[in-house]
Amino acid sequence: MSYTKYPPANDLKLRWGRLQELLSEEGTDACLISSSVNIYYLTGMVFNGFVYLPVNGNPVYFVRRPEDLRHPCALFIRKAEDIPSLLLKNNLGIPGSVLLEADQMTYSEHLRLQALFPVAKIGNATPLLRKQRMIKTPWEIEQLKYSGKIHAEVYSKVRDCYHPGISDVELQTNVEREMRLAGSIGLFRSFGSNMDIYMGSVLAGDNAGAPSPFDYALGGAGVHPSLPIGSNGSVLKEGMSLMVDMAGNYTAYTTDMTRVFSIGKLPEKAYYAHQVSIDMHHRLISETVPGTSCADIYNYTLQMAANAGLSGCFMGVRQQAKFVGHGVGIEINELPVLMSRSEDLLQPGMTFAFEPKFVLSGIGALGIENTYLVTDTGIEKITNFEENIIEL
Amino acid sequence: MSYTKYPPANDLKLRWGRLQELLSEEGTDACLISSSVNIYYLTGMVFNGFVYLPVNGNPVYFVRRPEDLRHPCALFIRKAEDIPSLLLKNNLGIPGSVLLEADQMTYSEHLRLQALFPVAKIGNATPLLRKQRMIKTPWEIEQLKYSGKIHAEVYSKVRDCYHPGISDVELQTNVEREMRLAGSIGLFRSFGSNMDIYMGSVLAGDNAGAPSPFDYALGGAGVHPSLPIGSNGSVLKEGMSLMVDMAGNYTAYTTDMTRVFSIGKLPEKAYYAHQVSIDMHHRLISETVPGTSCADIYNYTLQMAANAGLSGCFMGVRQQAKFVGHGVGIEINELPVLMSRSEDLLQPGMTFAFEPKFVLSGIGALGIENTYLVTDTGIEKITNFEENIIEL
Repeated sequence: MSYTKYPPANDLKLRWGRLQELLSEEGTDACLISSSVNIYYLTGMVFNGFVYLPVNGNPVYFVRRPEDLRHPCALFIRKAEDIPSLLLKNNLGIPGSVLLEADQMTYSEHLRLQALFPVAKIGNATPLLRKQRMIKTPWEIEQLKYSGKIHAEVYSKVRDCYHPGISDVELQTNVEREMRLAGSIGLFRSFGSNMDIYMGSVLAGDNAGAPSPFDYALGGAGVHPSLPIGSNGSVLKEGMSLMVDMAGNYTAYTTDMTRVFSIGKLPEKAYYAHQVSIDMHHRLISETVPGTSCADIYNYTLQMAANAGLSGCFMGVRQQAKFVGHGVGIEINELPVLMSRSEDLLQPGMTFAFEPKFVLSGIGALGIENTYLVTDTGIEKITNFEENIIEL
Repeated sequence: MSYTKYPPANDLKLRWGRLQELLSEEGTDACLISSSVNIYYLTGMVFNGFVYLPVNGNPVYFVRRPEDLRHPCALFIRKAEDIPSLLLKNNLGIPGSVLLEADQMTYSEHLRLQALFPVAKIGNATPLLRKQRMIKTPWEIEQLKYSGKIHAEVYSKVRDCYHPGISDVELQTNVEREMRLAGSIGLFRSFGSNMDIYMGSVLAGDNAGAPSPFDYALGGAGVHPSLPIGSNGSVLKEGMSLMVDMAGNYTAYTTDMTRVFSIGKLPEKAYYAHQVSIDMHHRLISETVPGTSCADIYNYTLQMAANAGLSGCFMGVRQQAKFVGHGVGIEINELPVLMSRSEDLLQPGMTFAFEPKFVLSGIGALGIENTYLVTDTGIEKITNFEENIIEL
């Protein structure tokens, strides 16, 4: 497994070409990209500015900062309003139709950018990029595999992060430190405005059942009302489960993996529920092929929870999440989503996390999460680490 | 100094009343708030949903999640489209004009919300909230003072986070751990889409001069091209300065403070530049009163840098920031901004960071940053910690 900081030119060209196919299918002339996430996707860098990709030809990087960025595609601007004249000066023409990231930029920013092209038809670039980014390129898959490998190495140190009497916050802090030393970039990128979080989540005992406002599988009360998610300062005690769901952001691409530790032994029903989650993963691994429907996976998972008599505590108790998995990549919540109303079919090159979880009152959260790559013939697990409950 | 997790009811009522005055001045009937930051400001909680504040009367909390939130102002919704009928059912009427957070929500979200009020005049709530949040309430000031106190306690541990041969990333990781153990909520809230960062920044040696795409005073190359800011893995060596600019997010309100450490002794010009920054703070403290112009502070700071012969390395070298300070609060980059085109005058209740910094080639960053509260007669420093260069 190789790890390089920058994508090779041919991998970027593959991305440009695929996006140009989508632009062509939409019948649009160009897109103008401004989000950090999609600028990174299209250039392998983050800069303050825009990427202009016409339906044919090379992209232009309109760069505001850093002021000394060196790249053959770069043209420097002071402000967005400089773009039209630079397009004309470089014989690229003014597009008759252009897509902007309407699901990512603010209303005010959108008004400003659409005014650059007063006679153009304006469309939404976000769904196209989200759709394209579902299918990873070869270099992106390498990044995810590398993240998964380090993710597992860090989880092997969780045991050393524990000592009797420690709180969930302190344990999480120790894990965060191991993550950073292993190369975690720290920042956790997500799509949408409702995904506030910090490095990931550690849930101990009944805090796993505390509902959260955010779009995560499980909640947790958090340490402060201004960030109601995750660990809440609970002291770890005999008979509690400890669910570790920290990010695998060791490259720009994040794997997602959850494991459960126990303080001493847990009641028998905890092992039972945990095994149901593992069985769900086994079924996923044995049955999934390109073409498998995301809704079908959600539905049979729900059915298996019901057959096990665990419907009431599946994906939460006081509040139950309505999905069992999601795409991962530059953002932790990419497409596809494994939920009942998904119309997506799995395709080779997709990478997704599957996270069937249970919350048992008086014990805590059970179940595992792995990240999988869809191959030509099935799926490959890229987060390989002990799956049974690990006693501390 | 008291610290309570939730604002008292009278402090929230003060905020509602002030915002209602601003709504009234705008001649608008109501605002509908959806950002986590402004929901927190208006309720002392974060939930998934909306705060509807009419120009008269109490707010309504339209809550989607958590599903078990208990509050006298709460009405539960499944989706935004439920709001108009609930307004009618509760005899609140449909507003003839309503403000939405146009500088914070996405274009698509804005279209969806404005469609709830098809005949209403729609305006922008963001500038009103930004303007109001400049002036802190008594409880908010307590939060900032508490954050400042813990901020200083954590900085007193930086020395213990160092050992010879350590890298900037490892030292930052050690500081992050101390921050978390001292109660840092981790997440770092900021306004705008161009403020990606993680917990704060540690800049060692020449990495301090690396330009960044983001809107911070100084840059740094970062550990990965997908997050080009801050520490880059440099090993700390004799003669390097180490600038620590980590967040003070020990409540929902963040103080901002920068201190400089040195590996052994630095060349004489480093102490000279550092003293110029301290002199700028002395002038700020002695001259600032309510009514002082933010632009004036920027201008005399720039002049002092020129008088000291340090213009070329003030606020960066390869790229120079065009501000020397900024408001702080729930977000690290609130109003006012200390820059030449600011029209703001300082007023009692404002809290702002002042950060005149220099970057010397071959040495690193120098200068300090403090957070100040504007009082009725002057300013009060709320980040009290040794200001001279601290030798490691």
